Amino acid sequence: MSPEFDLIAKYFTRPVRHAVLGVGDDCALVRISPGCELAITTDTLVSGTHFFPETGAEKLGHKALAVNLSDLAAMGALPRYVTLALTLPAIDEAWLAAFSRGFFALADKFQVELIGGDTTRGPLSITLTAFGEITIGHAIRRDGAKEGDDIWVSESLGAAALALKHLRGDITLSTAAFERAVMHLEAPNPRIALGRALVGVATSAVDISDGLVADLTHICRRSGLAASVEWPKVPLATSLLSASVEQQRACTLAGGDDYELCFTAPAISRELLHELSSASGLALARIGSMQSGEPLVRVYDDDGEAINIQSSGFDHFAIDH
Amino acid sequence: MSPEFDLIAKYFTRPVRHAVLGVGDDCALVRISPGCELAITTDTLVSGTHFFPETGAEKLGHKALAVNLSDLAAMGALPRYVTLALTLPAIDEAWLAAFSRGFFALADKFQVELIGGDTTRGPLSITLTAFGEITIGHAIRRDGAKEGDDIWVSESLGAAALALKHLRGDITLSTAAFERAVMHLEAPNPRIALGRALVGVATSAVDISDGLVADLTHICRRSGLAASVEWPKVPLATSLLSASVEQQRACTLAGGDDYELCFTAPAISRELLHELSSASGLALARIGSMQSGEPLVRVYDDDGEAINIQSSGFDHFAIDH
Repeated sequence: MSPEFDLIAKYFTRPVRHAVLGVGDDCALVRISPGCELAITTDTLVSGTHFFPETGAEKLGHKALAVNLSDLAAMGALPRYVTLALTLPAIDEAWLAAFSRGFFALADKFQVELIGGDTTRGPLSITLTAFGEITIGHAIRRDGAKEGDDIWVSESLGAAALALKHLRGDITLSTAAFERAVMHLEAPNPRIALGRALVGVATSAVDISDGLVADLTHICRRSGLAASVEWPKVPLATSLLSASVEQQRACTLAGGDDYELCFTAPAISRELLHELSSASGLALARIGSMQSGEPLVRVYDDDGEAINIQSSGFDHFAIDH
Repeated sequence: MSPEFDLIAKYFTRPVRHAVLGVGDDCALVRISPGCELAITTDTLVSGTHFFPETGAEKLGHKALAVNLSDLAAMGALPRYVTLALTLPAIDEAWLAAFSRGFFALADKFQVELIGGDTTRGPLSITLTAFGEITIGHAIRRDGAKEGDDIWVSESLGAAALALKHLRGDITLSTAAFERAVMHLEAPNPRIALGRALVGVATSAVDISDGLVADLTHICRRSGLAASVEWPKVPLATSLLSASVEQQRACTLAGGDDYELCFTAPAISRELLHELSSASGLALARIGSMQSGEPLVRVYDDDGEAINIQSSGFDHFAIDH
């Protein structure tokens, strides 16, 4: 029996509880709940492009799943299944054990089942496809924002980008500040509960993976509206509080890797959203509004002046990230 | 707008007809037919491991989809959707145009919709996840073979492995023989129609990607039975007819990349399968039977002697393939 089969059996085959058939056949088989549709997303993490080659395997296992679950969260879907395609330069049992530990810790937290996979030899790269269920017609899409809707973001932005700048040697953080910031880069929390709570409330949503401006632009383009953001209301990560305004703006507006949700909702939902925030302990900040006009994001400073946004976000082909 | 978005929009976004929502949101949304379950498979092709770096992009586009559809065929599923995660060293418009041409030509043939994707920078690698529908309980699994069942394979085996041996310089074929053989390596035909026709007939099935012995062993292990194969009945590709017996056996038994179906069926279905073969023009060869015993494949020569099978098939970690 070839090592490929051994690897899958040893590290990635666990009994399935929801799926009809999991790892070990030509395909997995899943049945979805009556009245539901399936939300499907796929994301690749490549060594040297999306993570430093020396990143710990356990953290990678967490992050690879987290970035896919974050896309399900942004649709308001309930995570159910995932497939994993793992390309490795060589068999490294310690690496696989740590990777699967990080992966399944997060999978278990959200009761997500690994139903299929492929391991192959090549430069380190991880592609996941994740599946979530959502009641027919209830998905929170990018194209539903209405003129006058408020724009909200969850928790705070910029910590992951700040940690990345430190790791790349662009800036130097104190040990304490770096350790606080790097948690956001390496172990993002997909906002599943928030996404579920926003079904029927938010008119559109996106997860912030490429930077607030780039991701909010997706909502603008799909909804045919402009977005106006007030810089003073953008919630900064604590580790950014002592940084320069330029760093703060670079990290929050164009930083990326936040995996917070950005969503729109009518003004009538403000009270409800404040209650949701209190009840869940997850901060929600109202940062602007959707307006008619060209599908662009404009960010205004304390004096109401438009800020010049140079970068439109994290570009996989332009930045070694 | 970053090049990533442009690439997806330019080469991979087409209107969806079956999916609720295709490329362009956080997730795709699909609804499945009432009474159906979803068969899901994922496969990665890595440059230098699964294909030669100089392989033409159009052929790669075909093959990446074909190997995934082949897994759906082996379950008897009807292909519906696919996601594509493409990792590229650099933006190469000519490459992308050719890749998408090969990909969509095959996708259109089977009315498969591309519903999501991710393009990123890194060493050339392609991961697809494909989805097919199958009536609840009708999937042809690997664990359903019964003692006494016949073992069948479609069309012929070994041409892809022969072409690979030539490309790696292990053997030298005539130009005509190579051209005939390499079609099987570069442009395999997923046996979708056969898989659909086998629903309710075959008791188990697998697609031959790692070699007849290795893949039939999956059926043995999952069904808890031994397989007895008669070498004289194994259908050889025409390009193998003039090869040595050793080459013939290496290419068919342990070659791989055939993407033909190997399946089991009770003897009572022989007439039906011969009719199916005549009606479809696709050869079906009865090569052996399932027996009680250790879950192993044994292959017997003309004299009834067991052939020593050295390799258990194509191993992604052992062979540069």
